[in-house]
Amino acid sequence: MDTVTVEPFARLRMLIVDDPVAVDAYLATLSGSDVVRAMFRLGEDERQAILSALAPETAAEFIEDVPDEVAADLIEALPVRDAASIVTALPSHERADVLAEVEDEDRNRILGALAPETAADARQLMTYPAQSAGGLMVRDFLAFPASASAREVLEDLTSGDRELSPYLVRFAYVVNPEGRLIGAVRTRNLVAAPPSMAIRNLMTPATAINAEADLTTVDACLEEAEVLSLPVTDDSGTLLGVVEREHVDDALAERAAEDHLRSQGIVGGEELRSMPLGLRSRRRLSWLSINIVLNMIAASVIAAFEETLAAVIALAVFLPIVSDMSGCSGNQAVAISMRELALGVSNPRDVLRVWWQEAKVGVLNGIALGVLLGAAAWMWKGSFALGAVVAFALAVNTVVAVSIGGTVPLLLKRFGADPAVASGPVLTTVTDMCGFFLLLGTATLAITWL
Amino acid sequence: MDTVTVEPFARLRMLIVDDPVAVDAYLATLSGSDVVRAMFRLGEDERQAILSALAPETAAEFIEDVPDEVAADLIEALPVRDAASIVTALPSHERADVLAEVEDEDRNRILGALAPETAADARQLMTYPAQSAGGLMVRDFLAFPASASAREVLEDLTSGDRELSPYLVRFAYVVNPEGRLIGAVRTRNLVAAPPSMAIRNLMTPATAINAEADLTTVDACLEEAEVLSLPVTDDSGTLLGVVEREHVDDALAERAAEDHLRSQGIVGGEELRSMPLGLRSRRRLSWLSINIVLNMIAASVIAAFEETLAAVIALAVFLPIVSDMSGCSGNQAVAISMRELALGVSNPRDVLRVWWQEAKVGVLNGIALGVLLGAAAWMWKGSFALGAVVAFALAVNTVVAVSIGGTVPLLLKRFGADPAVASGPVLTTVTDMCGFFLLLGTATLAITWL
Repeated sequence: MDTVTVEPFARLRMLIVDDPVAVDAYLATLSGSDVVRAMFRLGEDERQAILSALAPETAAEFIEDVPDEVAADLIEALPVRDAASIVTALPSHERADVLAEVEDEDRNRILGALAPETAADARQLMTYPAQSAGGLMVRDFLAFPASASAREVLEDLTSGDRELSPYLVRFAYVVNPEGRLIGAVRTRNLVAAPPSMAIRNLMTPATAINAEADLTTVDACLEEAEVLSLPVTDDSGTLLGVVEREHVDDALAERAAEDHLRSQGIVGGEELRSMPLGLRSRRRLSWLSINIVLNMIAASVIAAFEETLAAVIALAVFLPIVSDMSGCSGNQAVAISMRELALGVSNPRDVLRVWWQEAKVGVLNGIALGVLLGAAAWMWKGSFALGAVVAFALAVNTVVAVSIGGTVPLLLKRFGADPAVASGPVLTTVTDMCGFFLLLGTATLAITWL
Repeated sequence: MDTVTVEPFARLRMLIVDDPVAVDAYLATLSGSDVVRAMFRLGEDERQAILSALAPETAAEFIEDVPDEVAADLIEALPVRDAASIVTALPSHERADVLAEVEDEDRNRILGALAPETAADARQLMTYPAQSAGGLMVRDFLAFPASASAREVLEDLTSGDRELSPYLVRFAYVVNPEGRLIGAVRTRNLVAAPPSMAIRNLMTPATAINAEADLTTVDACLEEAEVLSLPVTDDSGTLLGVVEREHVDDALAERAAEDHLRSQGIVGGEELRSMPLGLRSRRRLSWLSINIVLNMIAASVIAAFEETLAAVIALAVFLPIVSDMSGCSGNQAVAISMRELALGVSNPRDVLRVWWQEAKVGVLNGIALGVLLGAAAWMWKGSFALGAVVAFALAVNTVVAVSIGGTVPLLLKRFGADPAVASGPVLTTVTDMCGFFLLLGTATLAITWL
């Protein structure tokens, strides 16, 4: 702030008009996140002009830094030749992930403009879901016939022609003439071996993972085998690629982030504020409109007690408090259940045990919160009975809320639903109905003292 | 379910009494997460008996799979010799993280029972925060004098004496006699070099990161340098260790998971249901008691309108709906802001731009939701005026909610507060007050038509 600095996006805006060739060099001076930020402050047309002006490698780096869906939108909008060069510059698994999000027609045009081998690779990767062994694997790996010598393999490895990730240089895979995986050699052992020895004498049996295996299975297999990469094969045992710990961790982190977004009501997928207004509004509304219906159902309980409310207007003050506090208590229990599910400490069969552990906390916290709110009500209106009704309703509903919050994620998971999306609405609807009923029902019974 | 199967925890319970030596072999048959689940279904005493009976390496594997704080509790409770053997079997950075969570007195006893070099290493690592370059680094790395030959380095590397991670074998670091980092050699280049060549002729300058650098900086430096590991030095340039992409990613994932827990009101740290009841209740209450006070403040707005409520009891039905729906809309905006902050698309200076982008969505969604709820109110009571009041209040409050939800995380971050913890309570308190005021205030103005 000391001197007048030009914001990166403003500088890009000038460069793209005055000196498009300089854009590449300018972006190289910025960090990855500054590039992302600057790009998303520009208009759609400017963003496209910049992507077209950049070296495909630079554009690909940016594309890797943004969510696949956003990347696909950017790629779609480019002239097909520019799109194809950028897609070619992406690592193979990213290429397939981005292309999978591109509209059918555009995808076919881009695939048509790729080198035939690259296009075939991408088509094959796209046949697998993004979060499966096949979708996560990279296609650049070291495979050699069993007759290759240790020296040949080492030379290929150190030739510098390939920029393999450090995971991948750890093993060289051995395939038969049909391409089936028959073993693996630790490259470390190649260094110590006689240079002319055939790798068939150095190889050990290789554990492979099926291309259809899902993310959780892949993670567990890597963990179990205590390795950082595993070969991926199809049903016939043909070596298709290699799945690496790094990409599995990225996919797990992405899934966790998505779960969090969905639990907060970003259901329709990944939103960024640079997306079109109509799309953002529509996606958010899809979640909100379900919630408003559930809210109306819950509030219908209040409507049934209009007489009681008319007699004791003060109760209206406590309805939102009981609703909100039960939501808070319940969400704590949901968060712990999601955490224990993720850590493997709980599983869907533990419903009863989890319920009991939550119920105990609920009783303690319910009493504490009930006494607090009850005392406030008593002081405010000078009515001990009102305080007692409020305290009782909040205390009991806290137990209800943690019971539901703790067990619903497990039950949803057990019945194949998505706990990240559905736990919240189920929790708030049931606890709201229950809370309103407890408060107004108790008040109705105690109406003569209120 | 087809045959009678013994749950792993029950089997462990039997083994620890009948045949403690067999526990190790039995655990080896289970997956990592099954071990965690079984262990946490046992009582505290049983868990300790098992940890003491296990080979230290097996116990260390389990300890690595649980959160540091839980691990520390388990370690503390063990006899100091058992604790020391398990701690010794942990990787160096995990060792320091776990010990940092152990109570002072127990920690000193355990450190006293470690090999002097291990204890010194651990003490040094513990001087840095867990989420800094110093706290994340591993102390097992390859450092050689500049006079070492390519062959010597390669032999050390392939001797099999060290089980280095694949990141770490990529570079050998070159240090001067005082231990200062003077360069790095790609091990790949060693393979191709004449065996007797001194590595001083092969080395290139090394980028190092200061041990005090925080997680975000470490992540950015690895990204920027496009490497998977970086040497860590102190202010004098002495090589202290190596920080690896893998551990940085783990730390980032852990931080994201913690942010999520804290946003759901698990403030006091990491809860598992195996923790003592009193602790769990107390920690959750610390968050709930702040919330109940904020709720009472918000509800005091309702108390100010008792007359209006008495005249139009139906309004009480809509108070919780307006409150809950505004919370939903606001939380969507919070989630997007947190996401954009994490992706680097937004930063705290973008408050105005973010507000404008949210306000537009808020107007569209506010109108949609307002019309929906207003129509329901109109149909229910047959009063168009009631419908109009409800629609107006919800529509305007939706704009308020997304405006606050979108901007508060940025503002909190700008002023150094933690957006994950504070965004929710700030959002709900302000939107509740505002929503109650809008609904009841408008109703008061329109009271003659209601």
